[in-house]
Amino acid sequence: MAFYVQKYGGTSVGSTERIKNVARRVAKFHAQGHQIVVVVSAMSGETNRLIALAHEVQVNPDPRELDVMISTGEQVSISLLAMALMELDIQARSYTGSQVKILTDSTHTKARILNIDEDRIRADLAAGYVVVVAGFQGVDEQGNITTLGRGGSDTTGVALAAALKADECQIYTDVDGIYTTDPRVVAEARRLNTITFEEMLEMASLGSKVLQLRSVEFAGKYKVKLRVLSSFEDEGQGTLITFEEDEDMEQAVISGIAFNRDEAKITVLGVPDHPGIAYQILGPVADANIDVDMIIQNVGHDGLTDFSFTVHRNEFNNTMNILKEKIQPHIGARDVLGGDRIAKVSVVGVGMRSHAGIASKMFRVLAEEGINIQMIATSEIKISVVVDEKYMELAVRVLHKAFDLEQAP
Amino acid sequence: MAFYVQKYGGTSVGSTERIKNVARRVAKFHAQGHQIVVVVSAMSGETNRLIALAHEVQVNPDPRELDVMISTGEQVSISLLAMALMELDIQARSYTGSQVKILTDSTHTKARILNIDEDRIRADLAAGYVVVVAGFQGVDEQGNITTLGRGGSDTTGVALAAALKADECQIYTDVDGIYTTDPRVVAEARRLNTITFEEMLEMASLGSKVLQLRSVEFAGKYKVKLRVLSSFEDEGQGTLITFEEDEDMEQAVISGIAFNRDEAKITVLGVPDHPGIAYQILGPVADANIDVDMIIQNVGHDGLTDFSFTVHRNEFNNTMNILKEKIQPHIGARDVLGGDRIAKVSVVGVGMRSHAGIASKMFRVLAEEGINIQMIATSEIKISVVVDEKYMELAVRVLHKAFDLEQAP
Repeated sequence: MAFYVQKYGGTSVGSTERIKNVARRVAKFHAQGHQIVVVVSAMSGETNRLIALAHEVQVNPDPRELDVMISTGEQVSISLLAMALMELDIQARSYTGSQVKILTDSTHTKARILNIDEDRIRADLAAGYVVVVAGFQGVDEQGNITTLGRGGSDTTGVALAAALKADECQIYTDVDGIYTTDPRVVAEARRLNTITFEEMLEMASLGSKVLQLRSVEFAGKYKVKLRVLSSFEDEGQGTLITFEEDEDMEQAVISGIAFNRDEAKITVLGVPDHPGIAYQILGPVADANIDVDMIIQNVGHDGLTDFSFTVHRNEFNNTMNILKEKIQPHIGARDVLGGDRIAKVSVVGVGMRSHAGIASKMFRVLAEEGINIQMIATSEIKISVVVDEKYMELAVRVLHKAFDLEQAP
Repeated sequence: MAFYVQKYGGTSVGSTERIKNVARRVAKFHAQGHQIVVVVSAMSGETNRLIALAHEVQVNPDPRELDVMISTGEQVSISLLAMALMELDIQARSYTGSQVKILTDSTHTKARILNIDEDRIRADLAAGYVVVVAGFQGVDEQGNITTLGRGGSDTTGVALAAALKADECQIYTDVDGIYTTDPRVVAEARRLNTITFEEMLEMASLGSKVLQLRSVEFAGKYKVKLRVLSSFEDEGQGTLITFEEDEDMEQAVISGIAFNRDEAKITVLGVPDHPGIAYQILGPVADANIDVDMIIQNVGHDGLTDFSFTVHRNEFNNTMNILKEKIQPHIGARDVLGGDRIAKVSVVGVGMRSHAGIASKMFRVLAEEGINIQMIATSEIKISVVVDEKYMELAVRVLHKAFDLEQAP
């Protein structure tokens, strides 16, 4: 007997037939004697439909009212799933974020969870109910409806698991776990049985968009066991996200290869090498609400240095304009260069902390294939390189093979 | 400067374009300095769509979960209207039934309002906001979402007007007021400027389905001025429902002609004329959840009497079976006869209290047209007759003319 919080996303509850499938899966766990709290998203497409309606009446929809509106998507899902469970003769009860209650701050459309009132859920579980909770939504101190932002249902699931001290938070999705890399690029990509929290963070932020980043951080903070599983397969253990390295049974040096072709690179040449120059360059970029990913500044010489960074490809032209018009004349840089036909490829693994030579191996493998490295950035558990976009798939494939990722450790 | 509660039904908010029209109308009142609380229904068709979804997953949808689901319809409407008002530079704020809060009993799908927390609305009005409240829904003591039953948005409007002591509750609908009879039957039918509460009750229950009956009773109980207006016309005073006869400026003897062809008649012949016989006949009918409308029992002779009543036409066969199988043998009645090709026609008016001869005039007019009267029932302000269905339109037209209803008094 265990206590699981199970979260089902929009695709898993995308139709009444799929909701019945979710009910059957929950029923199976319930029949095994487990206690189950289910968190559901809105039916796929519903949130976008509601947002479109809002834009028909208000050019910039008011955030408070938008939350009132889009929170109805999950409210429909919870009632449907509770009914589907009852149709299988299982006692079930649904709760909105306001009812549970999931207390958040008042930052409409991207609120943060402050507290969860667990008494009501505990009483229902003790009475044999399956409890169905609306994901993505909460309520602030004043009773206003709030939402947690895109993917917020994952966060609801993790927060409930933390508050209720569940044995595991199971995130059901349309993939059956976390892979060493995208199977569409490398056919030999392999599902990981476990991945560490830190690796998961790096994989998620690098574009393996299985879990919402904030929910993973939340799970790490509260030490919630998090498992990613497929809602379309009946068997399979998914991937367990662990928080202590010695739990990592696989002991692989490298866990996966992440990649991303959504970025563009910009280099400011001949920048005076004095304190505050990074802020002078990136301050106006941040003021324009442009997120910067990699930042590289090499050692300077002759009082000058070069400064490079990457931004989302959609922001490339905008960023180039800001640099050329506002920054270059202001700081007296020699030139501003850029390119948006690049890709970022990263090897990720906690093992590299204790294994030397990972970086040199990576660079050698790429060199053997004639792939030029344009930028390099490293963290404790990740090495990222920027290469020409056309080499991205090749780079991922040769690195996946070189680090033996197709074989279980 | 006045304080209005305005209620807009599903047709009035049936699209984002129509919601913008409602916003413009509210804005006009707001610009005149009036305080406005708006109650809205779900967009037309939405409640039925949600109920159909529920039936896809549960044969008999659980009432608590059904309320969670269908209450989302109004929740979408309130946020859209609040946004549309803001787009017109009017401060607006929406509230669900739970937020306001509209406290009800726990009778899901047909709950009754117990109390309304008015502080929040008063504070918003004082700060210059238009307050938009979801109709049809409330919350019980345990925090469960409840709904008030079909047409419950009218009741929400009246209840808010009562709690907040509004000057008037304005029900915007797709007709521009209450008519002396259905204009589709009598082209000369005339809109009434005022109608008394009691007349309205008789007109509503007789099939002039402009307002939900319970909301009218509620308005009567709390002396709320209730006005029916068209949401599609910019001018027009609609019909004001009054609660004191001396407010009735028109002083007409008869206010209108109501009719109904949804009924069937049943007569039990040769019933032993002793105490308790009415209960013996109607008890089993009530136990089968069949509503009885007119009931007539004449003075008996030779220890026997005849007992007649009407039911909804859909219940005719069912009721006949109950009477023939369970009741006739049990009480020893001679026979049970019935017919479902009948119509009920009623003249309604508080004036008949002080004017003799209304009934005889009605019977004479019908006799002159050769229309046979099958049953007669009277109340203080209404005389109803049952006639052959084929004479219904003729009866309504000649009575409308005979009582001079085409002319304002």
